[in-house]
Amino acid sequence: MTDETSQDLRAVEWTGDGLSLIDQTALPARLDRIAVREVDQLVDAIVRLVVRGAPAIGAAGAYGVAIALLQGEREGWTRDQLLAAIARIREARPTAVNLAVCVDRVAPFAGQGLAAVLAEADAVVREDLKANHDMGAYGADWLLKRTAPDRPLRILTHCNTGALATAGWGTALGVIRELHSRGLVELVHADETRPLLQGSRLTAWELDHDGIPHVVQADGAAAGTILRGEIDAAIVGADRIAANGDTANKVGTVGVALACAHAGIPFIVAAPTTTVDLATATGDAIHIEMRDEAEILNWSGVRTAPAGSRGHNPAFDVTPGTLVTALVTERGVLEVSAGELPGDRLR
Amino acid sequence: MTDETSQDLRAVEWTGDGLSLIDQTALPARLDRIAVREVDQLVDAIVRLVVRGAPAIGAAGAYGVAIALLQGEREGWTRDQLLAAIARIREARPTAVNLAVCVDRVAPFAGQGLAAVLAEADAVVREDLKANHDMGAYGADWLLKRTAPDRPLRILTHCNTGALATAGWGTALGVIRELHSRGLVELVHADETRPLLQGSRLTAWELDHDGIPHVVQADGAAAGTILRGEIDAAIVGADRIAANGDTANKVGTVGVALACAHAGIPFIVAAPTTTVDLATATGDAIHIEMRDEAEILNWSGVRTAPAGSRGHNPAFDVTPGTLVTALVTERGVLEVSAGELPGDRLR
Repeated sequence: MTDETSQDLRAVEWTGDGLSLIDQTALPARLDRIAVREVDQLVDAIVRLVVRGAPAIGAAGAYGVAIALLQGEREGWTRDQLLAAIARIREARPTAVNLAVCVDRVAPFAGQGLAAVLAEADAVVREDLKANHDMGAYGADWLLKRTAPDRPLRILTHCNTGALATAGWGTALGVIRELHSRGLVELVHADETRPLLQGSRLTAWELDHDGIPHVVQADGAAAGTILRGEIDAAIVGADRIAANGDTANKVGTVGVALACAHAGIPFIVAAPTTTVDLATATGDAIHIEMRDEAEILNWSGVRTAPAGSRGHNPAFDVTPGTLVTALVTERGVLEVSAGELPGDRLR
Repeated sequence: MTDETSQDLRAVEWTGDGLSLIDQTALPARLDRIAVREVDQLVDAIVRLVVRGAPAIGAAGAYGVAIALLQGEREGWTRDQLLAAIARIREARPTAVNLAVCVDRVAPFAGQGLAAVLAEADAVVREDLKANHDMGAYGADWLLKRTAPDRPLRILTHCNTGALATAGWGTALGVIRELHSRGLVELVHADETRPLLQGSRLTAWELDHDGIPHVVQADGAAAGTILRGEIDAAIVGADRIAANGDTANKVGTVGVALACAHAGIPFIVAAPTTTVDLATATGDAIHIEMRDEAEILNWSGVRTAPAGSRGHNPAFDVTPGTLVTALVTERGVLEVSAGELPGDRLR
């Protein structure tokens, strides 16, 4: 439950008059920070994935209300202009529920001034950090009880769910950090996570930072690795969880879940309860963001596909709740595939 | 059953005193050919994937015997040196059975001189080309009978199995070409196929060449696309098929198969009977080639993962025969998951 690993991994930090964001598009080559003092900059940073990960963009959205307030004061916005600016932040990306939830939580304080807004945004971050540590402990306890390992575990994860994706520590990666702190991680298989390589660039960077043994693999290697018996459990994050446990997460996740089901190993989703959207009955109702085909067809600005080819680029997929062995939240663990549905347990 | 599409797509061509290979590492940016007159060059071309695809490296291996014979004559090799050179070609890559099968078929003619060797290698290519066209017809007929579509089909494929991967036309892509020639392809989803992007670079190039509507997607998008009902069938090739139908193919394939099983759509393997290795009882006995971690950790020579990270890079995975709805060969279709096992039907 220490916070020491996240000291130099604060993806989202308030600096008094704006946000300082780690530029996650530049990692692992460079650890750059971007200063954000205007709403347009923040929306751009969210869209370009300078800041990404459902809880981290939630935090950025929370402080975004403060940015809108300050910019509105500087530029003499009307109340409607302020509300429109806050709405633009709220809608910058559609799939993760956290962004809208966090903006909606902080926005009502705008009428009380900056200090009130910042106090609420700080509370969002503080609660997320605590939730992550609680999830880590719940998740590790559950997995150890479930697998009763006589050796350290081999864990597979997909995308980045660490300090960079949250207020610190991480969701799925928080569980892995907790297991590591107990000396129970043999090896982490980090899917590289195409098209933007959040696994290779960000998760591997965090694992390397913490000295956790790991290998990076192509996303296509996940299922084979699992079916060959090289993995004890998969742990992933979530961007939105429906009432029946259907889980939207980074594209490629459902393939990991199918392989875990086939191999009979746990498929674990670690996400704060703010990720659960009880207003969404099933995954069919989750809006899946389609991103620019250029992310698939080019690499570093060089075309890799033929000029005549088009790209298909869904940013997320939906894992049926029936494949989710455990949903780890800050309030405890739901065994979703065994019938403990978020819609029943978290209302 | 025409051969017109493959005229400018001959991956492996004998030029009288050596091989001309399309450099598949340079596509789609450039259509370069590499002249091969020495065994070392050929082994290097196979290892570097200048030529790849199980039937195509089989053809390259068949002509490789002629290259060894000619080089041996030029350099005054002993019989043992010649045999050692042929063995090096045979072992250049371990997973696809076709390379060893084709080399073993042609090598006994070495004692009869170049003309006999070339006649046998030409026969290998001729038979592969005919087998591909036969597979295309069998596969298309089976799929249409199975799905009875009232509209053109949406097909997913993984890696490259086209003219570039064979003596021409293709295996899985041959089935797709046949369906297209009948006006029955709405859209092909081509998985990009990390780490070396054979899908994005080669399959998309062939589809573009033939005017077949297609999109390129991240490998991680395959399962979600299938589960959302956007695909009618997946068709892939194979590098080695065990007697029980377990199928080694490009890493990522088994994830496609799991998704097809979950969605209840056909998962079709198209491969010539030379790909079936009846001496291998199950997939557990198939040697999976582990390739250089640099393919995962770098892009165009630029490091994408942290310096401290290692890579895990299996080139293939094994799809259990229980997930193979249909195995399409040049002799007909086996419904493997329904119990028509290669070990029973092809001995």
